[in-house]
Amino acid sequence: MHEGTHAYRLAETVQRFGGERLGDPDVVITQVATLETAGPGHISVFANTRYRKQLEHTRAGAVILTQEVADATERSRIVCKDPYAYFARLSALLNPLPPVQPGIHPSAASDPSARVSPKASIGAFVAIGARCEVGDGTVVEPGCVLGSDVRVGRDCRLYANVSVYHDCIIGDRAILHSGVVIGADGFGLAWENGRWNKIPQIGRVVMGDDVEVGANTAIDRGALDDTVIEDGVKLDNQIQIGHNCRIGAHTAIAGCVGIAGSTHIGRYCRIGGSAMIGGHLEIVDNVEISGGTTVPKSILKAGTYTSLFPISSHREWLKNASHLRPLDGLVARLRELERRLLEPQEGKQ
Amino acid sequence: MHEGTHAYRLAETVQRFGGERLGDPDVVITQVATLETAGPGHISVFANTRYRKQLEHTRAGAVILTQEVADATERSRIVCKDPYAYFARLSALLNPLPPVQPGIHPSAASDPSARVSPKASIGAFVAIGARCEVGDGTVVEPGCVLGSDVRVGRDCRLYANVSVYHDCIIGDRAILHSGVVIGADGFGLAWENGRWNKIPQIGRVVMGDDVEVGANTAIDRGALDDTVIEDGVKLDNQIQIGHNCRIGAHTAIAGCVGIAGSTHIGRYCRIGGSAMIGGHLEIVDNVEISGGTTVPKSILKAGTYTSLFPISSHREWLKNASHLRPLDGLVARLRELERRLLEPQEGKQ
Amino acid sequence: MHEGTHAYRLAETVQRFGGERLGDPDVVITQVATLETAGPGHISVFANTRYRKQLEHTRAGAVILTQEVADATERSRIVCKDPYAYFARLSALLNPLPPVQPGIHPSAASDPSARVSPKASIGAFVAIGARCEVGDGTVVEPGCVLGSDVRVGRDCRLYANVSVYHDCIIGDRAILHSGVVIGADGFGLAWENGRWNKIPQIGRVVMGDDVEVGANTAIDRGALDDTVIEDGVKLDNQIQIGHNCRIGAHTAIAGCVGIAGSTHIGRYCRIGGSAMIGGHLEIVDNVEISGGTTVPKSILKAGTYTSLFPISSHREWLKNASHLRPLDGLVARLRELERRLLEPQEGKQ
Repeated sequence: MHEGTHAYRLAETVQRFGGERLGDPDVVITQVATLETAGPGHISVFANTRYRKQLEHTRAGAVILTQEVADATERSRIVCKDPYAYFARLSALLNPLPPVQPGIHPSAASDPSARVSPKASIGAFVAIGARCEVGDGTVVEPGCVLGSDVRVGRDCRLYANVSVYHDCIIGDRAILHSGVVIGADGFGLAWENGRWNKIPQIGRVVMGDDVEVGANTAIDRGALDDTVIEDGVKLDNQIQIGHNCRIGAHTAIAGCVGIAGSTHIGRYCRIGGSAMIGGHLEIVDNVEISGGTTVPKSILKAGTYTSLFPISSHREWLKNASHLRPLDGLVARLRELERRLLEPQEGKQ
Repeated sequence: MHEGTHAYRLAETVQRFGGERLGDPDVVITQVATLETAGPGHISVFANTRYRKQLEHTRAGAVILTQEVADATERSRIVCKDPYAYFARLSALLNPLPPVQPGIHPSAASDPSARVSPKASIGAFVAIGARCEVGDGTVVEPGCVLGSDVRVGRDCRLYANVSVYHDCIIGDRAILHSGVVIGADGFGLAWENGRWNKIPQIGRVVMGDDVEVGANTAIDRGALDDTVIEDGVKLDNQIQIGHNCRIGAHTAIAGCVGIAGSTHIGRYCRIGGSAMIGGHLEIVDNVEISGGTTVPKSILKAGTYTSLFPISSHREWLKNASHLRPLDGLVARLRELERRLLEPQEGKQ
Repeated sequence: MHEGTHAYRLAETVQRFGGERLGDPDVVITQVATLETAGPGHISVFANTRYRKQLEHTRAGAVILTQEVADATERSRIVCKDPYAYFARLSALLNPLPPVQPGIHPSAASDPSARVSPKASIGAFVAIGARCEVGDGTVVEPGCVLGSDVRVGRDCRLYANVSVYHDCIIGDRAILHSGVVIGADGFGLAWENGRWNKIPQIGRVVMGDDVEVGANTAIDRGALDDTVIEDGVKLDNQIQIGHNCRIGAHTAIAGCVGIAGSTHIGRYCRIGGSAMIGGHLEIVDNVEISGGTTVPKSILKAGTYTSLFPISSHREWLKNASHLRPLDGLVARLRELERRLLEPQEGKQ
């Protein structure tokens, strides 16, 4: 754990973020920590009653919790409605990003026509193409490559080895983790005379503000129109988003998800890890997809959807799975039994 | 959408690519576009009757469609057998790749023993190892790394941050998107005395001509013999191809597919997104695998194959899935009913 | 196949690694090869009786096999208990890594406060952050980026374009393949007032010794505590490991696996390709997960686990899958039949 470099009295914290303080107002908090590893200068969150034992034994200087469980500990504490959200804001306060060191590393290769803000920080071995724009306070780490005509907003952070293709637009406060690829060609092919012909991908990727993209995630440029990532979308690692997708504002997508081309996902959706979503689909707002689920058709009603085959021991699976293939036969046998047993009896009555 | 820089009269288009022109021969086309967004200088394709409404309202200067629906619009149009393939060729004409700017960027680090064509374009921060060869007209974008003894054919395009390991061979007209890794070690391990020993991976990756590889896809080198990607194979993003696989010519594989080691896939196959294909399998020519399907055994007959658990609301899934685990028991109960109901009756007759 | 540059007489091999030699002690071995492609200077392994035909026709100078099949060929051979492990060690002897060329490439950008061993080899366009440490004999290939305070042990190999975030620790003899990302932020978000707030990820990634990480795999840093990869863990390509996971020693994970945050996996586990493992789970030692399996709950008992929907032709799948959704109804119908048929009869007796 990274030791904190800032310090706040518990009373100051409550002044800043609200909540009710119980216990010593002068406890000094320098870092967030789990109940298990926290020491006297740390604050922890108790948001899940599964961790009651850890709460009992914690050495945390203070704990954030709800009114319902406010008496579960005698330690100094902050009582609030949403301890996890409170904890997030407090952690952001205690762990600010390092200050941006403006300037362009002498090894960087920036096209003379690019307009890089003097308040931006461009790392070693960064290549910036013709007519790019990079906004104030944006950090571009070593090894990133921006193609021509890329626009990156202000206060963004592109970690090492990010690649952004020509013409793509990154909004303000974006976070792109290492290995992210924005704007590669979509998988656009036309079959003719026994071979695939490539269809030029002339759309862009257009990203709103406050988007985070996890390590090694790829978002393809549009075939004709643009691929659009709306404000506040959060993407985890290893995700693939096909050409002409639209991801609605504030939707969160966990790792390893694949979304085929031209699918539109609504706002406030939550897609579980390794889900696979087919192409040309519409998924409305507020849909939750369970991890590992395959979505082969549109979802037009908010709710939670799942398609998992249940896990079992391999031995048990072998027995059960052997019945799945002839399930159609099983149904026919059941129908025959019903015919014999039920229909004649009903006929008799 | 990228505005076109070329212009063709509709009559010229038909002269070049065939098809029958209906309407104004002098309509000038500068770009392709969807029916929805097209303007007077654009040409659109009408290949799916689902978009009939968009056809009615389109402002496109011309439309490409089949004889069957030639009367569905009164706009200028090209009637042909395969509108989508026609569209692909026309789009390629209107959107040529930018001309190659030959030369080696002063920051690139090319081993003196490498032979880079003077007609190739090598970007900033490109590292080229000993004895590499790079062909005429090939573009290597910033941040790419070629290990020793790599051969890259002519008219290839390696986008930013591609890594190619030693000894691998890339054919002509290859397109490798950002983050692609060619020739990393396969997952070759031998268990001995409570630990894994690494097996040196001494094969290569050998790729034919006209191969496209999507962003962040990885193709491992062979353990002993080579991993082979035949001519015209098209790979989407985030794919993993294990050591000693062979992918047959003109096979297309969608995003997020994993193919374990030593599996041979035939020609003209189509593998849907997020499919998982086990190791040491044989899949013959002309096999289609549905997206999300797991393939644990060889497929020796052409056709379409699927293994999806159907999606439903989570509530409905909970009910249904609870019966899958004891499916073996259900079958036994059904059998017992049949024994009681059917066998005695048949015995009586 | 890479021709060998070392040569050993068969007698020397047995002296070094044990086993019983049958046939000519003076056969000179320069390389390993498959039975099919081997020539007189090559040694092959016969570990799978499926390859008996290849054994018959092999031109290999020598073959490694077990006592049980020692008579299956008359060629010179080494008889041992575990031919595959023997083969691995022999291949490592014949194919040593190229010797490390110590020194820092003039184009590399190493912070003055970094301590890079003079016996390490740092390639072109490598960026090394403040206070990093790089051990003896470690090779860092072109395009790698180490954030501040990264520690890399001795005799490691970081292939091209690897990214390691600040504070992470890589043990001795690690192999990180191209595109690997170590220490990106975990997917830590708190929902508040209609948007996601980022939770600072202040833990690290801490890796033990002898870890191998495949191409484009990403391991996220911990949210509060560290993400831990223990000694001897082997990770294939395209894997995603979420924040605060712990992977136990000598566990091997195949390609495209996703492991959500805070899951602890035991030692000596084997996870098949494209498996998906949910968050906050515990998986004990010696668990094997079949490829493509989704694990939504903890596994507290060693054994093999599976959750695959069986593959079939798409036509057959359509029939069977149509019964899965109303499986709950089927069970009710079966129950009704049992009630009618069995209960009255039992009541009569």
